[in-house]
Amino acid sequence: MDSLTFVLFGATGDLAKRKIFPSLFNLFLDKKMPDSLTIIGLGRREWSDEVFQKHVEKSLQSFSERSKNVDAYKIKEFLRFFHYRPLDVTDQENYKQLLNVIQKYEQELSIPENRLFYLSVAPEFFDVIALNIKKSGLGSSKGWKRLVIEKPFGHDLKSAQELNAKLREAFEEDEIYLIDHYLGKPMVQNLEALAFANPMLQALWSNKHISNIQITASETVGVEERADYYDQAGAIRDMVQNHLLQLVMLTAMQQPEKLSADEIRRQKIRVLEHLRPLQLDDVGKNLVRGQYSLGEINGESVPSYTAEPGIKPSSMNDTFIAARLWIDDAFWGGVPFYIRTGKRMKEKSTRIVIEFKNTISDLYKEKNEKTPPNLLIIEISPNESVLLQFNSKNPLNNSKIEPIKVTFSANKKDVPEAYELLLFDALNGDSTFFVQWKEVELSWKWVQPILEAFEQNALLLHGYSAGTMGPRAAEQLLEEDGFNWW
Amino acid sequence: MDSLTFVLFGATGDLAKRKIFPSLFNLFLDKKMPDSLTIIGLGRREWSDEVFQKHVEKSLQSFSERSKNVDAYKIKEFLRFFHYRPLDVTDQENYKQLLNVIQKYEQELSIPENRLFYLSVAPEFFDVIALNIKKSGLGSSKGWKRLVIEKPFGHDLKSAQELNAKLREAFEEDEIYLIDHYLGKPMVQNLEALAFANPMLQALWSNKHISNIQITASETVGVEERADYYDQAGAIRDMVQNHLLQLVMLTAMQQPEKLSADEIRRQKIRVLEHLRPLQLDDVGKNLVRGQYSLGEINGESVPSYTAEPGIKPSSMNDTFIAARLWIDDAFWGGVPFYIRTGKRMKEKSTRIVIEFKNTISDLYKEKNEKTPPNLLIIEISPNESVLLQFNSKNPLNNSKIEPIKVTFSANKKDVPEAYELLLFDALNGDSTFFVQWKEVELSWKWVQPILEAFEQNALLLHGYSAGTMGPRAAEQLLEEDGFNWW
Repeated sequence: MDSLTFVLFGATGDLAKRKIFPSLFNLFLDKKMPDSLTIIGLGRREWSDEVFQKHVEKSLQSFSERSKNVDAYKIKEFLRFFHYRPLDVTDQENYKQLLNVIQKYEQELSIPENRLFYLSVAPEFFDVIALNIKKSGLGSSKGWKRLVIEKPFGHDLKSAQELNAKLREAFEEDEIYLIDHYLGKPMVQNLEALAFANPMLQALWSNKHISNIQITASETVGVEERADYYDQAGAIRDMVQNHLLQLVMLTAMQQPEKLSADEIRRQKIRVLEHLRPLQLDDVGKNLVRGQYSLGEINGESVPSYTAEPGIKPSSMNDTFIAARLWIDDAFWGGVPFYIRTGKRMKEKSTRIVIEFKNTISDLYKEKNEKTPPNLLIIEISPNESVLLQFNSKNPLNNSKIEPIKVTFSANKKDVPEAYELLLFDALNGDSTFFVQWKEVELSWKWVQPILEAFEQNALLLHGYSAGTMGPRAAEQLLEEDGFNWW
Repeated sequence: MDSLTFVLFGATGDLAKRKIFPSLFNLFLDKKMPDSLTIIGLGRREWSDEVFQKHVEKSLQSFSERSKNVDAYKIKEFLRFFHYRPLDVTDQENYKQLLNVIQKYEQELSIPENRLFYLSVAPEFFDVIALNIKKSGLGSSKGWKRLVIEKPFGHDLKSAQELNAKLREAFEEDEIYLIDHYLGKPMVQNLEALAFANPMLQALWSNKHISNIQITASETVGVEERADYYDQAGAIRDMVQNHLLQLVMLTAMQQPEKLSADEIRRQKIRVLEHLRPLQLDDVGKNLVRGQYSLGEINGESVPSYTAEPGIKPSSMNDTFIAARLWIDDAFWGGVPFYIRTGKRMKEKSTRIVIEFKNTISDLYKEKNEKTPPNLLIIEISPNESVLLQFNSKNPLNNSKIEPIKVTFSANKKDVPEAYELLLFDALNGDSTFFVQWKEVELSWKWVQPILEAFEQNALLLHGYSAGTMGPRAAEQLLEEDGFNWW
């Protein structure tokens, strides 16, 4: 692994504390870090290296399980990587000073001029930071450079294209690592193995054998502290444009020529290219938007969305989306992909359900036996498991045909965090599980008519009680096709 | 369910005591018996009804789990079905007297003249009993009649044909119920549901996706008390001609038009018709015969076959068979079916392993990843389970591809016994899980060249240590094709 300087914008912020520092620590313990590494945290606060290191140490105490079981000297060794500089992201001079500091460390440690810039900041600063990196010379070096940023990448197609254009003034496309943290979840990364390392599943992976696919990402939490952002974004931008479309791509992609980042992402983009576009007037036939009202979760009463602090009572924001997608190609033609996501739903669950065609039921109808369809259920969150439901005679019930479930679960406790996997890949220059710009562009393109339909209030906003799986209309979406949500 | 008279030849014998009475009792407790039923036990001993009922009661105490938890009156109610007559199977007069007795009970209980004759006797008496049933008029009635007999059905093709001819003088083909108790095992009956009630498995069930099938029926016991019979029969007659070929048929059969006894058996027979016949000179290329020698099982030393009581030291009898079978049709062409059975092997296990073609390994070879083949393992005995082995990234091991097993097991304690299911079907007239004459004839036809090869000592008799999975030659049989026993 190349040595590098890791420059963390937003080092005093929430994500850094909860995810980045603990994940870096796990990589350190597993010896998955480069031999030489400088980590420079940047923020507005006037901290010193020592204050910052103390901050990192407290973050480990609060958010790192593994730090509880290691010797103190290991933690000290880890903290030594960390340095800090106050930085005003709009002040170009600060960047020039930062450059001097980085070059000093690079010479001291004989590190090649490889620099990774991780932007853990509000999205409105992405472009100014990228530009200043360029102008200051931070981005010109004999080594490589990478820019790692989190969603949101724009709030619609136009703003996404503008953001990309600005970033591309400073970075090449293959230097930009866009994080969709779902792609770091181990079971999501496992979709590739399930689909391509198992001939028995690969043989079934098309419209010949599958009748429909259902992808759910439900949460029990409400809008929490994120009212400002969420009331502008809605579930459509917060979950559908990125996470759900990523899951659709990973489920529907065809076997790549090679298991390289480029080939895998080529196949993902191919899915988006074949996703049937929505016209403004058929959004309503294929999509349900909802907003949670008063309800009960885990025995506690929870308020409606419009009664949440920071949300206008007149807000028409979507907290729930269900939709029917079509992939128009030889492999998936005729197989509806249903997606569903929302806040304040009955349970927290991210899962993909593959329902197989039930072509044999006539054989058993004559015997008055019901044969439910075979199912493959991939649970991504909160637990990771793979479950197959198939039919068997129950010897304890007169050999009646009944569904049985066979399942495999990873031991949750030890499974690495998404950020660990993604940080490791970013340090290593493996962009397989990062989002490529074309995926961002095509997913905004597909979502754009929906945004316009919402702008024009062309779709009913269905209320649903908090604590349920969404509005009735979401059931009807499948019932129209003769299916039900599993 | 029709009322009937159940006539049990060999009522004082071992099978009746260990299996038949406890199974009838379970059917009684589950209300799966006809409303009116007379059970007449026959044997050489001069017992009265009361003595016989006491014998049945003792059998329940020794061999029926459920009898321990029922009220005494229930057992008394059950015993009231049982009557006894001494009978010399060769004496036609005895049968005429039996007829009078049966008719008397039929009139008393207003039972239609339905009579089931269960022959739990040595095979040399099958034909004389059948003939006497006919001559005495026992078999002529306004109701139905059924003959239930256990293997062995002959000891080679000619003797099987002769036996069948004799039985057919007294009974129609569809009145003869041949028991292969493997067909009563719940997981064996479940093969039909697994194959035909699961479109995802049905889609994979051919040479397009399967590379080979391995059927093992291994025992740890030696010849025990059965030296006389076994030294004449060998594993080829004791296990291969019946149980193993039945498992081959059930695994390889194509989906029937309907789930009727006739249609299912038609498909089974089709498999036998497409089984590639062995010529005398290629038996040796496709079959391994072995005989156990001294070894250790469960920490105890066990003697070699020829040192067993009742076995001649010069015996060349086979206690182990492994063979490669081909089914020459469009579905299975090119898929070897391997069978393996023996006494004094490492473990007691009856299982079917379906190995899927490993068509994707090139994709992962480039990444230095091994992808083992997908497996479907159906465990029939001693435990019943269905297991799938497929490939997944192990998040605890750097996302390396590793095989994982998903499995479903029935709770062994409560699963009904084979004899329960078979007796119920016999009482009900459902011959689905009984062996049809054509299956017997075709399986003897296929086995005949092997018997001749053994007669002529044309095959090496491989020794194997008791407590192993058989001779090395059985491994080589698969290695020649690039496979291994799982």
